[in-house]
Amino acid sequence: MTIKAILFDTFGTVVDWRGSLIAELGDWGAARGLAADWAGLVDDWRAAYGPSMDRVRRGDLPWTKLDDLHRASLDTLLPRFGLDALDEAARGHLTLAWHRLRPWPDSVPGLTRLKRRFIIGPLSNGNVALLLNMAKSAGLPWDMICAAELFHHYKPDPETYLGAASLLGLEPAEVMMAAAHNGDLAAARRCGLRTAFFPRPTEYGPRQVRDYAADSDWDVVASDIMDLATQLGC
Amino acid sequence: MTIKAILFDTFGTVVDWRGSLIAELGDWGAARGLAADWAGLVDDWRAAYGPSMDRVRRGDLPWTKLDDLHRASLDTLLPRFGLDALDEAARGHLTLAWHRLRPWPDSVPGLTRLKRRFIIGPLSNGNVALLLNMAKSAGLPWDMICAAELFHHYKPDPETYLGAASLLGLEPAEVMMAAAHNGDLAAARRCGLRTAFFPRPTEYGPRQVRDYAADSDWDVVASDIMDLATQLGC
Repeated sequence: MTIKAILFDTFGTVVDWRGSLIAELGDWGAARGLAADWAGLVDDWRAAYGPSMDRVRRGDLPWTKLDDLHRASLDTLLPRFGLDALDEAARGHLTLAWHRLRPWPDSVPGLTRLKRRFIIGPLSNGNVALLLNMAKSAGLPWDMICAAELFHHYKPDPETYLGAASLLGLEPAEVMMAAAHNGDLAAARRCGLRTAFFPRPTEYGPRQVRDYAADSDWDVVASDIMDLATQLGC
Repeated sequence: MTIKAILFDTFGTVVDWRGSLIAELGDWGAARGLAADWAGLVDDWRAAYGPSMDRVRRGDLPWTKLDDLHRASLDTLLPRFGLDALDEAARGHLTLAWHRLRPWPDSVPGLTRLKRRFIIGPLSNGNVALLLNMAKSAGLPWDMICAAELFHHYKPDPETYLGAASLLGLEPAEVMMAAAHNGDLAAARRCGLRTAFFPRPTEYGPRQVRDYAADSDWDVVASDIMDLATQLGC
């Protein structure tokens, strides 16, 4: 196994989207005297993520970057949470909260170790600006930003995994996909990439129903990114 | 002037392609007892760069990444330097010397200062793998890799400058192009980007004929990347 690059799923795998968004939206609301079920809004916002990308995957929508899908989903959800009075500036600000997600505690130290020996980057459905701003604010030491936006296809479409290997100038088997989601790894393996799993059992809070453990014989199964670095000899 | 990202031309601006290639090819030849006019080969190789991209810009060639243009130019040149006996492995190895170019002395410390306040990346005609491998070997602390390859257009086509701003989620005026080449900056300015010039008067060795100084009122004119960082308050 000669791995030259490791690409990471990002939402849930590297950053805690749920905890970060509930904290940011809660603080934002408190500063404005706005009470709302922020956790419910965050959970429903994330629940709209898959279906919104499905519209692009099926061709019902032309290529649309995730910032714009996030904003459209937010606009749909706000009335249900009594927040339909939020103005344009507020909606734009909240949508960009996805650019400010916080890393899990092992992410920055683990990636820093892996970066010494491997090319590291995200391979995420987030758009480039989202991933780049997240890296700057969270201190993620990526070597490059690889995003679905570059291929105009959302994961798990094969164009994303194969397109990433091509940009890196590597064979698929020289690239490892790392994710806390078995489905992402299954799609990467079908494209010939190597695979690494570690669980994030609190990612979805009370709505978590899967991905507590590896459900296949992935090339590496670790407890977190620090353990992945150890297992890869970094 | 609110600059959020600074994109750098790379060949000549950040790395010394001529000195690096002459040293690497000379060492490689010496280790094999091969004598040749290595400096002449390097200068002619670089002279083939513009015309090879012109074939893509005019549509005579479909999109072709720079690694492949470099290889085709090398194949054309080797017989003129008495090196037509070089085998496939040697040709592949020499082509990848462009991935191992060395930075000018001010590049890494200057970029490290700029990175604290700005998003920094290359905006180069080099392909992603070339720029990424160069960054890893030279220690260039880019936040992201922006390459002509992402847009299937070579600079100075406007698709490159505008495509980069779009990926960054920024207005063109929030992006600064930094280059040791006045022509690159003129094209960036026509697209609405901010501009920074610093000279690299030894870039082309005895063949240098231009770009000894700024030939327009660029937003910043500096002596090198350290001075650029100082002028931008980093």
